Amino acid sequence: MPQSDSARIVLASRPEGRPAPQNFRLEHVAIPAIGDGQVLLKILYLSLDPYMRGRMSAAKSYAAATEIGQPMEGGTVGEVIESRDPAFKPGDIVLSHSGWQSHAVANAAQLRKLDPKAAPLTTALGVLGMPGFTAYAGLLTIGQPKPGETVVVAAASGPVGSAVGQIARIKGARAVGIAGGPEKCAFVRDTFGFDAVIDHRDPDMAAKLAAACPDGIDVYFENVGGHVWDAVFPLLNTFARIPVCGLVAQYNASGTFPGPDRLPGMMRDVLSKSLTIRGFIQREFAAAQAPTFREEMARWIAEGAVKYKEDIVAGLENAPEAFIGLLEGRNFGKLIVKI
Amino acid sequence: MPQSDSARIVLASRPEGRPAPQNFRLEHVAIPAIGDGQVLLKILYLSLDPYMRGRMSAAKSYAAATEIGQPMEGGTVGEVIESRDPAFKPGDIVLSHSGWQSHAVANAAQLRKLDPKAAPLTTALGVLGMPGFTAYAGLLTIGQPKPGETVVVAAASGPVGSAVGQIARIKGARAVGIAGGPEKCAFVRDTFGFDAVIDHRDPDMAAKLAAACPDGIDVYFENVGGHVWDAVFPLLNTFARIPVCGLVAQYNASGTFPGPDRLPGMMRDVLSKSLTIRGFIQREFAAAQAPTFREEMARWIAEGAVKYKEDIVAGLENAPEAFIGLLEGRNFGKLIVKI
Repeated sequence: MPQSDSARIVLASRPEGRPAPQNFRLEHVAIPAIGDGQVLLKILYLSLDPYMRGRMSAAKSYAAATEIGQPMEGGTVGEVIESRDPAFKPGDIVLSHSGWQSHAVANAAQLRKLDPKAAPLTTALGVLGMPGFTAYAGLLTIGQPKPGETVVVAAASGPVGSAVGQIARIKGARAVGIAGGPEKCAFVRDTFGFDAVIDHRDPDMAAKLAAACPDGIDVYFENVGGHVWDAVFPLLNTFARIPVCGLVAQYNASGTFPGPDRLPGMMRDVLSKSLTIRGFIQREFAAAQAPTFREEMARWIAEGAVKYKEDIVAGLENAPEAFIGLLEGRNFGKLIVKI
Repeated sequence: MPQSDSARIVLASRPEGRPAPQNFRLEHVAIPAIGDGQVLLKILYLSLDPYMRGRMSAAKSYAAATEIGQPMEGGTVGEVIESRDPAFKPGDIVLSHSGWQSHAVANAAQLRKLDPKAAPLTTALGVLGMPGFTAYAGLLTIGQPKPGETVVVAAASGPVGSAVGQIARIKGARAVGIAGGPEKCAFVRDTFGFDAVIDHRDPDMAAKLAAACPDGIDVYFENVGGHVWDAVFPLLNTFARIPVCGLVAQYNASGTFPGPDRLPGMMRDVLSKSLTIRGFIQREFAAAQAPTFREEMARWIAEGAVKYKEDIVAGLENAPEAFIGLLEGRNFGKLIVKI
């Protein structure tokens, strides 16, 4: 009975270190009935994002962990196929947070209607969605780049990093990107228009980054952690700002980290350079800034000032492997699963 | 010829680790002549502050290092004994940055006249001076305590820490202090009126700090570093703010620090708790806030809402030993040398 079945991928077990296929399980369940104020969605696209690694762990974080046996969470674009809310009718396309599944019941109040004519639907999960807004809010509210300043961002071919660099350039700053491998680096430079790009696999990365930042670094948008930090840190200028939205390089780590202890040296530079380090989750800024973001970003895309790249994988059953690859940088552009 | 001699203490050599008496040298030099727009000062009081440790090292910092053979720098209160500037006359009392010496030539434009009737002269070096302003600007601009929040500060019997806690209470927050030894702790609680105080020498410090902060920590005013940080960090709340104005516990350290590496864990919490860590030097805020600070702080002192404690040492020749003791927490209150 394919018509009344919903496919979903649940968390089968918590990973130790990097997630493996056996941490996920594909299930089929009956499509549930909807109540008043709810709609039934057929999911069209699922967004895969690094933050999902955090939800797989029981460790305390800014959001509750996914329970074992529950579907993995995630942002989705879906089509309304049944509605018990006057604001939605079958055929409407909506943005929801329905997770890794083919069908979902959603409360109408938590949906945002999308206009398929205004922009490709997938952009609601990328450049016009959560990753784009993460870049916009973190860079402009915390990073505050000024004309002529230097902004550095890693994972520069990804949806957050590419938007950070392009918005920095719109604001008159220099954008220096870090990416993995020659293909991604060329794309960051030639398509996203960064002023310089460094391959983080290059053994001379630190020296090349220093050469690409002759006036030092005023904003480091931190979304990876790991060895990029060590190359960036000595180049930070007095009053540099460091928005921290992700640490994908250490998400799979567990236990303690071997020495030497870098914390005292970091704090010394925080003091001697009057640095600002600020962690954030985009939703902190959503109520105040998301409408302006969508308006500005749509205009920048229309004007050609912001470009984006998507990496679309077909089939819900391929989501686990695609997600594992995301944590290792194997995707190229915003990773989305077409259900 | 004592009348024409000036005593001064110069940096004899750079310390490795903790400063020792042989890093300083007492000298007598002729009192120099003054030019137009200058005054000759007889120094009455010299402020000793932890930041001076940084000036003794050649390592890059926010300020240039003191050169070998040059006088140690420092804030001073002096009396004008000769003037070639119309704004000053002999007998005027001024605040200057004349360093560790008995006499100094100063440019009139860099002096601020003090009113000996308004407040004890020494307060211009403490609660109404740089340390008080460090507390005021860092706490209010970066820490931003809200009523009911918990503010933690170490070196709570010192001039910065005591002001931080008392200003926090004026703003309706709870103040929890950390100090060294029962005498200082009692003073912090009974005279400065903190809500709770923990002895950092107590082997159960971390547990006692947790018990004293049942609602977690919203502002940690960092002026010491070291093992206090490890006790504070797990208690920080989401959106906690950490103004960093000093790291006296690590000023004498050199080389690398042994593992484990605490940096990845700190960055994980920066991200998961949306923390703000912000280094600062008070002068960043001086132009905008110092006049308001002096007005408000003088009123708080007059009303009894802010109390202060000074530790006055007699004789310039005793400054080196007093300074070495300051880095080890042997002073009790704002350390000042009466020349």
